[in-house]
Amino acid sequence: MVATDTRRLSVFETMQPDLDRVTARVEEVAKLDYPLAAGIIGEIVRAGGKRLRPLLLLLSARAYDYDEAFERLVTAGAGVELLHIASLVHDDTVDKAQLRRGKPTLNSVLSTGATILMGDFLFAQSAMLAAATGHVAVVSVFASTLGHLCNGQLLEMFDGHRLDQPVESYERRIYGKTASFYAGSAEMGAILGGAPPSHLEELRAFGGDIGLGFQVLDDILDLSQETATIGKPAGNDLRQGTVTLPVLLYVQGIDRGSPEWKTVDDIVSGDITDDATIDHLTALVRASGAIAEATVTADAYIDRAKERLAILPDRETREMLEELADFFGNRTS
Amino acid sequence: MVATDTRRLSVFETMQPDLDRVTARVEEVAKLDYPLAAGIIGEIVRAGGKRLRPLLLLLSARAYDYDEAFERLVTAGAGVELLHIASLVHDDTVDKAQLRRGKPTLNSVLSTGATILMGDFLFAQSAMLAAATGHVAVVSVFASTLGHLCNGQLLEMFDGHRLDQPVESYERRIYGKTASFYAGSAEMGAILGGAPPSHLEELRAFGGDIGLGFQVLDDILDLSQETATIGKPAGNDLRQGTVTLPVLLYVQGIDRGSPEWKTVDDIVSGDITDDATIDHLTALVRASGAIAEATVTADAYIDRAKERLAILPDRETREMLEELADFFGNRTS
Repeated sequence: MVATDTRRLSVFETMQPDLDRVTARVEEVAKLDYPLAAGIIGEIVRAGGKRLRPLLLLLSARAYDYDEAFERLVTAGAGVELLHIASLVHDDTVDKAQLRRGKPTLNSVLSTGATILMGDFLFAQSAMLAAATGHVAVVSVFASTLGHLCNGQLLEMFDGHRLDQPVESYERRIYGKTASFYAGSAEMGAILGGAPPSHLEELRAFGGDIGLGFQVLDDILDLSQETATIGKPAGNDLRQGTVTLPVLLYVQGIDRGSPEWKTVDDIVSGDITDDATIDHLTALVRASGAIAEATVTADAYIDRAKERLAILPDRETREMLEELADFFGNRTS
Repeated sequence: MVATDTRRLSVFETMQPDLDRVTARVEEVAKLDYPLAAGIIGEIVRAGGKRLRPLLLLLSARAYDYDEAFERLVTAGAGVELLHIASLVHDDTVDKAQLRRGKPTLNSVLSTGATILMGDFLFAQSAMLAAATGHVAVVSVFASTLGHLCNGQLLEMFDGHRLDQPVESYERRIYGKTASFYAGSAEMGAILGGAPPSHLEELRAFGGDIGLGFQVLDDILDLSQETATIGKPAGNDLRQGTVTLPVLLYVQGIDRGSPEWKTVDDIVSGDITDDATIDHLTALVRASGAIAEATVTADAYIDRAKERLAILPDRETREMLEELADFFGNRTS
């Protein structure tokens, strides 16, 4: 007997046809004249992931003039996805990453110089898509989103290893490197859909909040999961010298200048690199309650995001955005 | 007795006050929160050079609604200058250059990763300036200019060392890496000034032509000048494996497969790197008539550019643009 699938379609399933249009647009624009690079970038595009940014962009217009604005929404959605891909190309170069989504990175195959230029070329193509919406406010949000992203990553690079930072600095950093992109995607969608200004602001803030929740959870997973589950060594952020929320909360609970404090400091400044010490610190953070505390923070962001949706006129879209928030908050399984 | 300066003001002197406004705008926007980087970028901005791109942008609007559009012209001018600076930051990283305008480059002081991100940040700031003109056509030209630039540099990187390329490939490359930026600057100025479409096209083509002439002459200088004059070793392009017009014309005059051809091929593919052989090739190119031939090409671009100006309504602006074309064509001294 064949089981009949009577469950409601997920937000991803419902939006799939529209997202496929976005993907087709990205593939069209990301074509490069250089066969080797074209192949690699084509693979990155197709490997794809969930297209969370275009999805949020589309959903942010869905309660308004969605149909009239549809072509421009697809264009803007392709723009944010391509901006995402361009920033991945540069990120992988910065991090000297060899694999992305299980495939060799551009920088693992080509010179640093070629990879920089190809990332720049993709930035240019993504900006052309933003301009092709014909909406100067969209371009403005687009450009400032790129500014936020770079600033967030620079903050992480220059200040991310400091143990004496307040939680606000951590928040500012993850807002820049992660949440600003979701805030911007929501805002672009709301602008193109013709949402009234108050809705636009709430949708932008919604995007920012789910982005913050998502990044805090990602930082928690890096410490709490076993290596086998996340496919990279636990404590990877520590190894890279990045102080995330759980570590920050942990050090706030110990004396500055104590041997424990010194050990954390030596790890994030790269003076200690041996696995045993890092694993031991990971265990200490897990045992300290810092992870539970960080989880409360992540949940609060997701809850705040969902509260913002009360303003939305359309119940179906509201439920889809709530579902998306839960997905970001890792509450789907 | 004090000599009285009765000569006519040069285009640079006449436009200096307006260009100073552009520079002030660039300085305002290029401020970074990272003291070390801010210092270096501030120096690059102040060291400055002639601001040729904003100058061309302003002049392309000067015969039209210059005064009404002035604030937006300053904004767009700052945008193109900052785009230029951003691309220099990435170029120096790609080329591993240590000095720029006599000052240490960003990449000589910071990591490659930090330099990539700072270049990206400056791209973002420049795109925000383009968007701040409120003119979506300007943003479109801006983004496509960045696309042309990257494409030109990628073409140089991947195809620039081939000896069997037609002159058209060389032209396409230098159009991308140099001329497109002047074409785009002129077009943005003409758009903002409200030039009629036919004028806009001629001004864009004017920018492209002076850019082509400029780059051909730059490539000639690299081979024809003594090391002491240009401050870097003669034949630098050859050392970097880039085949420029004089070399291309020289190899077109010798048999493919001859020992001379093989020597050039070995130099541009980096198999021969010794100074004596490169100096000898430089002397052969100089003696071959290829430099004279390339100079004819450069002159033709500059002449074609000046002919395009006949369409301009305002004699004073036309003369200033002619003077600029002569400056690009190295006819000023």
